[in-house]
Amino acid sequence: MQTGHLLLPLPPAGPDEALDTLVARGGVRVERIVSFGQSSPDDFWYDQAEDEFVLLVSGSATLRFDDGRDVALTPGVWVDIPAHCRHRVEATSDNEPTVWLTMFWPCETQPTS
Amino acid sequence: MQTGHLLLPLPPAGPDEALDTLVARGGVRVERIVSFGQSSPDDFWYDQAEDEFVLLVSGSATLRFDDGRDVALTPGVWVDIPAHCRHRVEATSDNEPTVWLTMFWPCETQPTS
Repeated sequence: MQTGHLLLPLPPAGPDEALDTLVARGGVRVERIVSFGQSSPDDFWYDQAEDEFVLLVSGSATLRFDDGRDVALTPGVWVDIPAHCRHRVEATSDNEPTVWLTMFWPCETQPTS
Repeated sequence: MQTGHLLLPLPPAGPDEALDTLVARGGVRVERIVSFGQSSPDDFWYDQAEDEFVLLVSGSATLRFDDGRDVALTPGVWVDIPAHCRHRVEATSDNEPTVWLTMFWPCETQPTS
């Protein structure tokens, strides 16, 4: 058993996001990511081989999906992002740290017809 | 892609905990559990076949482990509970809802020597 606190302590603000792996076991990774105003590079899209679940814990952010939808994240908002669901981080708050809890796991293989 | 808010809305308080499955895919389940003062029955211990990750989102709770450790959970505290790590919910707040985010996934098979 391991325990910790997502907000205590927070890493110091820097030019890059801060990523901590909380759990990595059985093909599953649970990570804390802290953003300080970063966003995805222009024209960059995540196209991941893994399924992802995201919870915004603190701060604020906007995720953009390639079907044109924007999701505004405030604390408590979660997003289920299946593998290969293309998305990007359009913005994160630049006046407070934005804390994400993310979980990644192997994509379920789809049966071929 | 699906999205929601862990705290909006909350279910009405009742005699039982309220469980909502947010994601169930690829052997992984993500659930929101809302407690209203419930705790595990006397002498009951969870002994799960799955690995579990828990984040306390709102309210407060105490988890007890069978090695004698108590973990006091306040918002932001997470606990990684490997399969068969025996534990119980010793208490949850009785003056506000306690919201848990839990993730379960299949236990990695240990190689036998």
